Amino acid sequence: MSTPLDPIATLVEYLRFPSISTQQEHAPQVRACAEWLESLFKKIGLHAIAYPTEGHPIVVAKTIPDPKKKTLFIYGHYDVQPPEPLEEWKSPPFQPHIDTKEERIYARGSSDNKAPTLAHILGVAKTLQEKGSLPVNVIFLIEGEEEIGSPHLDHFLQEHQAELASDVIVISDTGMAPGNLPAITYALRGIAAMEFIVRGPAHDLHSGLFGGAVANPLTVAARLIASLHDENGHILIPGFYDDLQPQEPWERDAAKALEQVSQADQYIKELAGVEELFGETGFSTCERIGARPSVEVNGFGGGYQGTGTKTILPKEAFVKLSFRLVANQNPKIILEQASTYLRNQLPPGVSLDIIFGHYGEACLMNPTSSYGKAAREALKESFGTEPFLLRDGASIPIVAQFKKIFGVDILLIGLANPDCAMHSPNENMLLRNFFNGITLNQILLERLAQ
Amino acid sequence: MSTPLDPIATLVEYLRFPSISTQQEHAPQVRACAEWLESLFKKIGLHAIAYPTEGHPIVVAKTIPDPKKKTLFIYGHYDVQPPEPLEEWKSPPFQPHIDTKEERIYARGSSDNKAPTLAHILGVAKTLQEKGSLPVNVIFLIEGEEEIGSPHLDHFLQEHQAELASDVIVISDTGMAPGNLPAITYALRGIAAMEFIVRGPAHDLHSGLFGGAVANPLTVAARLIASLHDENGHILIPGFYDDLQPQEPWERDAAKALEQVSQADQYIKELAGVEELFGETGFSTCERIGARPSVEVNGFGGGYQGTGTKTILPKEAFVKLSFRLVANQNPKIILEQASTYLRNQLPPGVSLDIIFGHYGEACLMNPTSSYGKAAREALKESFGTEPFLLRDGASIPIVAQFKKIFGVDILLIGLANPDCAMHSPNENMLLRNFFNGITLNQILLERLAQ
Repeated sequence: MSTPLDPIATLVEYLRFPSISTQQEHAPQVRACAEWLESLFKKIGLHAIAYPTEGHPIVVAKTIPDPKKKTLFIYGHYDVQPPEPLEEWKSPPFQPHIDTKEERIYARGSSDNKAPTLAHILGVAKTLQEKGSLPVNVIFLIEGEEEIGSPHLDHFLQEHQAELASDVIVISDTGMAPGNLPAITYALRGIAAMEFIVRGPAHDLHSGLFGGAVANPLTVAARLIASLHDENGHILIPGFYDDLQPQEPWERDAAKALEQVSQADQYIKELAGVEELFGETGFSTCERIGARPSVEVNGFGGGYQGTGTKTILPKEAFVKLSFRLVANQNPKIILEQASTYLRNQLPPGVSLDIIFGHYGEACLMNPTSSYGKAAREALKESFGTEPFLLRDGASIPIVAQFKKIFGVDILLIGLANPDCAMHSPNENMLLRNFFNGITLNQILLERLAQ
Repeated sequence: MSTPLDPIATLVEYLRFPSISTQQEHAPQVRACAEWLESLFKKIGLHAIAYPTEGHPIVVAKTIPDPKKKTLFIYGHYDVQPPEPLEEWKSPPFQPHIDTKEERIYARGSSDNKAPTLAHILGVAKTLQEKGSLPVNVIFLIEGEEEIGSPHLDHFLQEHQAELASDVIVISDTGMAPGNLPAITYALRGIAAMEFIVRGPAHDLHSGLFGGAVANPLTVAARLIASLHDENGHILIPGFYDDLQPQEPWERDAAKALEQVSQADQYIKELAGVEELFGETGFSTCERIGARPSVEVNGFGGGYQGTGTKTILPKEAFVKLSFRLVANQNPKIILEQASTYLRNQLPPGVSLDIIFGHYGEACLMNPTSSYGKAAREALKESFGTEPFLLRDGASIPIVAQFKKIFGVDILLIGLANPDCAMHSPNENMLLRNFFNGITLNQILLERLAQ
């Protein structure tokens, strides 16, 4: 490579792709994004291939392996969440906008996960530029289906297990701690998604002529949702908590310390834009997010959606919901338990179709390994402050798969600012996190080699 | 008028107007429909005016009053419900389609209320054609805002009270009894509509990063709906049943007789297209529909509505619901009670906007007056069978207003077949009910004159 890549220009190029994996009509743009990545890797001197899958491509890039060096595996994803609702974006989601006062870049996928992934790539590129070689072998794997549960990754990893072997895996798809404090994430929540459809009458009915005599699918769906929690936010599905591994005492202490330093409650209130927080009694906010399972309704619809009134008893209702799970809850068992629980509550005259969505296990790691220490030092050096130990509420289901398949240490180093609006309108990335991330990655290459 | 009007051709013309009162964009077609009616009345020899209001026009038509004759006031409405969901119609809702095998005409507004209204008009036209004059004075009032709660009718009636004075009021906006049996309706349910919006976070949130720590507006909305009923279908709003006038013993007997003759349960199941009925324990199906109040969710929406999964905690949810009330429940009090009940249940971090919609009181009439007897005879003669006494579950809020303002007997003579799919896709009218309706109206003019 002759001239260094401009970090911002490259990031802007990357963010322009509407690589929305869940919407089939965007498949061509997802593929174009994979091809762009492949050529970027080639440009900085790595051997790269965008492997086709039955879904979206998986991009793998490698340095020429030196058997005397340790091997670092870096995972990221180039697919993004749908940008809807579009009207709430201050700038178009795929036309990256830099707010120079806030020092942020706004675009769908900016923090989740394009800028963090690119910080890794540019860290590698810069070290190669400056020193001609890397102190470790590097393997990048950037996939295009993380936002839909990585349906083709497991098979790919198994098939390419030998050539993807490494000493340590680094993933920066998590976030900084509340207050934008640097952190090593040692736990991720699992996920299990489902959609259900309550079907009642053959067609919408007049609510005067039938109201009171026929079960209303919207009412039934609402009652099913209401049955998920008690008034204290505790989940009521029988067996739901049976396999859950409780927190260690040091974890509750670490959560408390972080909450005090970061004023997490106030910070999270501001991020969410709510006056008051609400969750399961007996746990702090950071615990509710990182250490406790949850179930959220992601979408609900049925009946008249227009303006004014239409006095119908509608024929059906749909609900999309997803669980966030913690170690050692099994997502498949949870989906089955929920399914049985919902089915047992149906009144006469309605039927229930349940569709299981994507799922992945929670992950709990040891942050005190030698690689963990190396990462903490690199974070301290690049960000100038001691990193926290964090449980992240989000899910990266493939982390558990990586652990099973490769059996090596996994380091989760988050670069996304907590106010990045990930999955929401106006997703953004603090530019200093992006630039610090490039430096972090350069230091990390050195530290991991030792 | 020189040549008789062709009933079917006239009905088809009438049904072509998409006179959807709740959708502002259809206001010109609503007005066009009013003007068409005005000219139809003029064509058959009545004095007619389409009065503008702040909403949609009110059409009034009269014979030249003869002080020696009794005066019959006939009310109907020319506005219709929205036709959505369009994809479920077998033929376009505003392109009337006659199924010659079923002997039905399919179109939005066919049974509610254009064909019954037109049966009145054509009955008058035919008698005028055959005899040159009517045995009674007739006043027609056909409004364009029934489906949105007749917001301008009350004011209009008060303003024109003297010129609209009559001896008896006839309305055929109700239906035949189950089994398409002729009936006099002596009770109508009241209505009270409301919409509420649960607002939570300032924007949609990532369900991993916030799930479990912030109240989810969809979950809150679902819990509010679930709080409306107990598991026996009894409504839980405090005070809801306080003013309700219970049925007389003869009413429960009449309901039972009708249910036996018409096999109402089986009939209603087939109409609704459900395997089993469901409603408040302790009451039969006809009672649940006609004699008991109900609350139905008409629409519910929020969060991700697209295909696939979007793991968000959405910022808001909306619910449209409507009560059907019975005598002597006061709709305004009911809306206030419901509002208080809902507001008292909110968890921290969400707010509730409640918008009251249209409302109208229930109506309970005496079916044994001399005019009631005249109507029952006319029904028996035109349909060939003794009419039933019926409580109708639907609402015609202006019936209560008519009663208050004019203080005369009101006869509710339904022509809509119970399987007419009123308010639903594929609304239709049995042609024999329409033609019998014309005959019924001719006989009624004679009987009421006696």
